[in-house]
Amino acid sequence: MQTQYILELIGTGFFAISGALAANDKAQPDWFGAGFIGFITAIGGGSLRDILLGSYPLVWIHDINFVFAIILGVIMASVFFKTLIKLRKAFFFFDTIGIAMFTIVGTEKAMSMGVNPIIAAIMGMFSAVMGGVIRDVLTNEIPVIFKKEIYATACLFGAILYLCLEYLGCERNLNFLVSALLIIIIRIVAVKKNLSIPKFIKERN
Amino acid sequence: MQTQYILELIGTGFFAISGALAANDKAQPDWFGAGFIGFITAIGGGSLRDILLGSYPLVWIHDINFVFAIILGVIMASVFFKTLIKLRKAFFFFDTIGIAMFTIVGTEKAMSMGVNPIIAAIMGMFSAVMGGVIRDVLTNEIPVIFKKEIYATACLFGAILYLCLEYLGCERNLNFLVSALLIIIIRIVAVKKNLSIPKFIKERN
Amino acid sequence: MQTQYILELIGTGFFAISGALAANDKAQPDWFGAGFIGFITAIGGGSLRDILLGSYPLVWIHDINFVFAIILGVIMASVFFKTLIKLRKAFFFFDTIGIAMFTIVGTEKAMSMGVNPIIAAIMGMFSAVMGGVIRDVLTNEIPVIFKKEIYATACLFGAILYLCLEYLGCERNLNFLVSALLIIIIRIVAVKKNLSIPKFIKERN
Repeated sequence: MQTQYILELIGTGFFAISGALAANDKAQPDWFGAGFIGFITAIGGGSLRDILLGSYPLVWIHDINFVFAIILGVIMASVFFKTLIKLRKAFFFFDTIGIAMFTIVGTEKAMSMGVNPIIAAIMGMFSAVMGGVIRDVLTNEIPVIFKKEIYATACLFGAILYLCLEYLGCERNLNFLVSALLIIIIRIVAVKKNLSIPKFIKERN
Repeated sequence: MQTQYILELIGTGFFAISGALAANDKAQPDWFGAGFIGFITAIGGGSLRDILLGSYPLVWIHDINFVFAIILGVIMASVFFKTLIKLRKAFFFFDTIGIAMFTIVGTEKAMSMGVNPIIAAIMGMFSAVMGGVIRDVLTNEIPVIFKKEIYATACLFGAILYLCLEYLGCERNLNFLVSALLIIIIRIVAVKKNLSIPKFIKERN
Repeated sequence: MQTQYILELIGTGFFAISGALAANDKAQPDWFGAGFIGFITAIGGGSLRDILLGSYPLVWIHDINFVFAIILGVIMASVFFKTLIKLRKAFFFFDTIGIAMFTIVGTEKAMSMGVNPIIAAIMGMFSAVMGGVIRDVLTNEIPVIFKKEIYATACLFGAILYLCLEYLGCERNLNFLVSALLIIIIRIVAVKKNLSIPKFIKERN
């Protein structure tokens, strides 16, 4: 669990970086605004999950290390901006690890509160994607997950796999790894092959 | 109450349909995005009400049937898209029944938590309209309730009537029916006669 | 505390006025829409703080006087619109007093729930600025705090000063006054001198 905790902190920091960078692309905020949006991107998904579940205290309010990870992320986003742009591929990779991990952690947390597995899968996905949705709403964009990328769907599949394997008695750490890997693979393949989900309704009159 | 429960499920499904269709008009989402927006439109109002009141667990987390109703709604929205467009009038009618019902259910739920009747009326209205507000924010539109339609105001009047009749000792089921009917009638008359509320401030300098 | 309570009510009313006026500038809502946005602007920050902290019941749900203050504010915004435009300077002054007060009240409330002081400072700032953020999102604008004004940063500095002075044993009412004054002074100086925070990232490629 120690490893997982450290990975969660790193993942949170990466969320803050991606939030600050995305905000910069769209809204050209000042230092404070970028930090604010990075902060909300990083805490948004987990906070919404916990508020919907009524699970208090929220993780980042209970454990200040997550706030430090976020602050560090925002500072790094500004200082190493040019390097991060060049490292876009590495960045994409870490971001994908982040969402994979948050999905499974979120699913587990919901299950631990005794909800229906369908709800748990939804909560796992929410944990991973809602920070980005809030970020897009704040920067006045239509959330990217509604349109382009196989992103939230990958999370949903990973959460469902996790729940199935748990039901079948799979050992927890192995299950965590396998389910997170599924999310990572779907996402990478989707981006490499430029796959997308069909439009909801093709014919428009 | 059995009848009411089934009506609530149907109403939730209709909210999901209207959310998915509205999302399609504006953001042209993929299948997943339409489902996501339909889901949030359907759960948004009730969830916000329960979060503001601190009433846990949220209805749809407690009772998975609401999630099934939403999934069914989204599928129907896609499969029967052309038919639904032709049935716009019937659709408007069911949508109006939905908001009427959710208003009264929301008002009742708030009252059962011992809040001031003014708060209860606001919560009733929130239950009915906030899903649509969140939907509009997600699709990057100024929420329609701020502008065109006598919609939220109708809900508010219905909630107030319900509270008055309850205060006067009116039987609950009769009260539910009469108050919901007031909302339905105001809304239908407003749309038929093209009524609207005066602008907040007419003179602009 | 009696004085503070009355000031809080007045501050809430001013938030509602500023919300309704800002909404009118942007979305040209009807009467109901302006009231709705004014209402959400006034309750948004404090409600978000309490929901994040899990502090129930929310202030305005517990104490109906805040709802009356909001309704009064919205009515005044419409009736005295022209006068309020002329009194823009006085208005700015009262608005600044409002955010200063809400910051310190919010910080105190968070501290009373036993959170880390860093979290308390963030909560203090959220109390003051999040209503405006929600208002801007609802009217389809990029929140003003991300860009132009030294506004949220002033709140953050005030909250930090309050926490430092409290740690050093400063008497509560004096501390309240001094910390609020810091926020007011930073904000007024920033506007007078047209100060702003540097852009997050200057070079854009």
